[in-house]
Amino acid sequence: SYDIHDIKITGYLQTQFQVAQSPGIFSWSGGDFSQNSASRFMLRRGRLKVDRVDKFSSVVFQLDGTQDGLRIMDAFIQFHSPEDKSLLVTAGLFNRPFGYSIVYSSGYRDFPERARVFQTLMPRERDLGAMISYRPKKMLHFVTAELAVVNGSGLNAKDYDSNKDIIGNLNFKFDSLANKKFHLGFGGSIYKGTVRSNTDTYLKPIENGFASVTDANNVGYNFRRDYYGANLQLEYNNSFGTTSLKSEYIQGKQPGVASSSSISGLAASQSFAAQPTTNLYLRNFNGYFIWFTQQIASTKLTAIVGYDVYDPNTDVDESEIGKTGNNTTAGDIKFSTLGYGITYALNGRLKLTIYNEHVHNDGTQLANYQNDIKDNVFTTRLQYRW
Amino acid sequence: SYDIHDIKITGYLQTQFQVAQSPGIFSWSGGDFSQNSASRFMLRRGRLKVDRVDKFSSVVFQLDGTQDGLRIMDAFIQFHSPEDKSLLVTAGLFNRPFGYSIVYSSGYRDFPERARVFQTLMPRERDLGAMISYRPKKMLHFVTAELAVVNGSGLNAKDYDSNKDIIGNLNFKFDSLANKKFHLGFGGSIYKGTVRSNTDTYLKPIENGFASVTDANNVGYNFRRDYYGANLQLEYNNSFGTTSLKSEYIQGKQPGVASSSSISGLAASQSFAAQPTTNLYLRNFNGYFIWFTQQIASTKLTAIVGYDVYDPNTDVDESEIGKTGNNTTAGDIKFSTLGYGITYALNGRLKLTIYNEHVHNDGTQLANYQNDIKDNVFTTRLQYRW
Amino acid sequence: SYDIHDIKITGYLQTQFQVAQSPGIFSWSGGDFSQNSASRFMLRRGRLKVDRVDKFSSVVFQLDGTQDGLRIMDAFIQFHSPEDKSLLVTAGLFNRPFGYSIVYSSGYRDFPERARVFQTLMPRERDLGAMISYRPKKMLHFVTAELAVVNGSGLNAKDYDSNKDIIGNLNFKFDSLANKKFHLGFGGSIYKGTVRSNTDTYLKPIENGFASVTDANNVGYNFRRDYYGANLQLEYNNSFGTTSLKSEYIQGKQPGVASSSSISGLAASQSFAAQPTTNLYLRNFNGYFIWFTQQIASTKLTAIVGYDVYDPNTDVDESEIGKTGNNTTAGDIKFSTLGYGITYALNGRLKLTIYNEHVHNDGTQLANYQNDIKDNVFTTRLQYRW
Repeated sequence: SYDIHDIKITGYLQTQFQVAQSPGIFSWSGGDFSQNSASRFMLRRGRLKVDRVDKFSSVVFQLDGTQDGLRIMDAFIQFHSPEDKSLLVTAGLFNRPFGYSIVYSSGYRDFPERARVFQTLMPRERDLGAMISYRPKKMLHFVTAELAVVNGSGLNAKDYDSNKDIIGNLNFKFDSLANKKFHLGFGGSIYKGTVRSNTDTYLKPIENGFASVTDANNVGYNFRRDYYGANLQLEYNNSFGTTSLKSEYIQGKQPGVASSSSISGLAASQSFAAQPTTNLYLRNFNGYFIWFTQQIASTKLTAIVGYDVYDPNTDVDESEIGKTGNNTTAGDIKFSTLGYGITYALNGRLKLTIYNEHVHNDGTQLANYQNDIKDNVFTTRLQYRW
Repeated sequence: SYDIHDIKITGYLQTQFQVAQSPGIFSWSGGDFSQNSASRFMLRRGRLKVDRVDKFSSVVFQLDGTQDGLRIMDAFIQFHSPEDKSLLVTAGLFNRPFGYSIVYSSGYRDFPERARVFQTLMPRERDLGAMISYRPKKMLHFVTAELAVVNGSGLNAKDYDSNKDIIGNLNFKFDSLANKKFHLGFGGSIYKGTVRSNTDTYLKPIENGFASVTDANNVGYNFRRDYYGANLQLEYNNSFGTTSLKSEYIQGKQPGVASSSSISGLAASQSFAAQPTTNLYLRNFNGYFIWFTQQIASTKLTAIVGYDVYDPNTDVDESEIGKTGNNTTAGDIKFSTLGYGITYALNGRLKLTIYNEHVHNDGTQLANYQNDIKDNVFTTRLQYRW
Repeated sequence: SYDIHDIKITGYLQTQFQVAQSPGIFSWSGGDFSQNSASRFMLRRGRLKVDRVDKFSSVVFQLDGTQDGLRIMDAFIQFHSPEDKSLLVTAGLFNRPFGYSIVYSSGYRDFPERARVFQTLMPRERDLGAMISYRPKKMLHFVTAELAVVNGSGLNAKDYDSNKDIIGNLNFKFDSLANKKFHLGFGGSIYKGTVRSNTDTYLKPIENGFASVTDANNVGYNFRRDYYGANLQLEYNNSFGTTSLKSEYIQGKQPGVASSSSISGLAASQSFAAQPTTNLYLRNFNGYFIWFTQQIASTKLTAIVGYDVYDPNTDVDESEIGKTGNNTTAGDIKFSTLGYGITYALNGRLKLTIYNEHVHNDGTQLANYQNDIKDNVFTTRLQYRW
């Protein structure tokens, strides 16, 4: 069999108390609140990871357990040739290799959540597939290049169509600048995929709305789902404490559906885990985040400020959303979030985070979204990581 | 990373064969039987616990896996200040700190199940929240005081309303009496919570029934859910073998619903994990258990006898239940259970339990409950604990 | 507590890419494809096993985690008397002790899947119950005899009726023949169970069809579910590489239901996890598989060829299926599968399998099954076992 010391058991637990500005809000800060609830205790993430490393191969098995149930988060095999460690093959369920924040662990991130745009486009980060990674060991050791083929349907599905999606990623990382006090990272990513239409009608983006296009050939047609991203990370270890600035931008085409009584605005442009049965809305989107952190006087306290934007439909003005005849819905509303707070490292494993988020939307012509809706969220989180 | 020896993996597995007095009975002895089944093999509890302890903090992660699925049972973080170990903070998903039997592990309990009243009021023992515990190390080391704030909606929910519930517990334990042969424990607990009404009507307890009260202000009103408990444990290590007597009493107010074709009598007064959508029935209840165990001639055999009572509605006589116009249902019926059996410790980890339960209810005017229903249960259980 | 070295953590992960001959096929090669999908990445099995062994007892706890969720696969206790290791008691959730392939681990099997007949009759291999095993240590050490009592409803259910099923198994294994170069195993098994009818009508097999029998006494009647099996394994370590031949045959009576719009032909004769609510079809069935493997020139490559047949209804000719009035459905169609491929052991833990399956059925009078349907499957699988 094996020596137990080859196996590592690690994990982290995040438990939090949250207050919403009004009951039952839709939220990306730990999920929608229950209809009549404006405050809650919850487990945000309960991760247990078992991994095993051999000379040329390894396996990772990670669970997530919360009040919402228990599920598998990671389950992948990696191996490289005995001669060359720089070329790595990964197969199974793993993080989509797109940009910086998707693959960066929630157990290490300073901010409670990933930006709204990434939660929408790549729900729960993972997908099923295979990947080749190139990480040169000597020359160009600051480069990482990755190419993956995935189902495109996320961590819960065996794929609902026959098309596979492709992800390419190129990243650069320099850790030895300015006497190792300055760290720089940047990169670009591309996602080329499709979404299958189940109906004969799709909605084409036009200025300030959608035009409906009906054709029998649309049934079974695979519409483009393309993303382009760029990211930058700066970190400076100065005498006052570490300062960091991280940012990521993404734009592209995201087929979604209309918001309705059963589909919230937030869910309307979320990537699909199963074949959507209603008409597709082909939206052009963009989004970004900026994360700034400042360690305070070299203490265990760090101030954090984040700002992110997701505009699911860049072809429409908010003031035109809901106008009769232009086919827009709550799924087209742009949201921006300003968050600020502090983290306190009680000890090497325990971290307390206090964070307040102002979530803003401009007014529309929709009855429920005539003004900025009251969906701010305050979070107190305790994390143990091991 | 860490040293694997810091992590403990423990658990217990309970597998059992049961025979019911009639097919499809509702039961608290491992859950209701399937409609046409009067006997069954089942996994009662399959616990796997991973915990990690540091100098000032720790984490616990416990799973339960049976034929009914896999879920998280405990997931909490604990820490104390480096200077003072007596004050402990707990956050996450943990046992409600109420009384004795809720927090006492099923892997160590002599009896197969907790009393009916506790299973009804605090399903699966756990809730999400935060707790402060005070356990003095020197003076008053026999005292434990606990104060918790919880969702009130149990281990499966992020809370369905904005009100939080409060639990207070005070316990005393003396282990050094009579040359350490006599152990004494006792304590008291209080639960102060609420249940939100979703309708304009609630049912107020009156003598031998309920009166209906309708008012638009009842929608969204939070009705009291209050429990008061007291407990006592005696243990005496005598020459014949250890003798123990444990008892716990609880009374209070429990908002529930009416029993109906889709809600069994047992479920009608069970605490809610989600917003109840029908009218609330505000019941005054009480309940208790007495557990007696006697080790036989210092062998591995122990005789066990238990008696418990749960009266979900102390304002109504059983003979009046089901009477036209008084709004009573099967949810108001009092049940008492006399159980007896033996446990045999095959070795330090293996335990065999044989237990027979007589479940009694008085006759009512309800068609299905005119006499004592045939819901006795016989259980043979094998447990491995490690 | 315990010493961590007593606990073993093992497991295996299987991730694969598959291509189906047409979208949305029903398949036993990893489950049905989604309606519009003819290719997919998926996790086939993600096993994590924790087991603990004492002097006289042990416990096993195995999880399976894939994109379809996380569930318990094994959870059983075993013990023997201190004096005699040859008699072993097992209780909990464990593999049905029937034949060879059901109990042989998927982590060690050369072929991607068990034969169709065994997947149909004993879905997911496990059941809840108790078992006595006899494995003599000195004389007759080549014999294994097993007798189990199980629910008959598989790994997801507490049993839906009161009848229990009985499984008997007798196996012989010789490992020291021809200078330990030749290994021989063979055995026979019997399954005696029942399925409860919920309706007053059952369908009796007659030549080329079913006759309907209606009688009020059929409600609640337990119809026979009987299997008889025989198995043979040959392995020869020759100079070219190890050669093996394994085969297993099974026949008997399997109560099922009719295939319909909501029940596929494959599911119509599958063993039940819950009370079937429609009329029972009492089918006489048979099936078998032949597995041949040849290691190639003592390399890490092994060629594998498998053939299996499942005829769910031996009383009907395929050409008569679907004929008006004979009550036959897609649930009566015989399927045979020819598979061939290679396995490559990249290292001691990593295995790559490439396998192609031709699934054949004869034409029937059913609209959807007039010819061999296009349900071949190609599989590329990567496995890590530890």
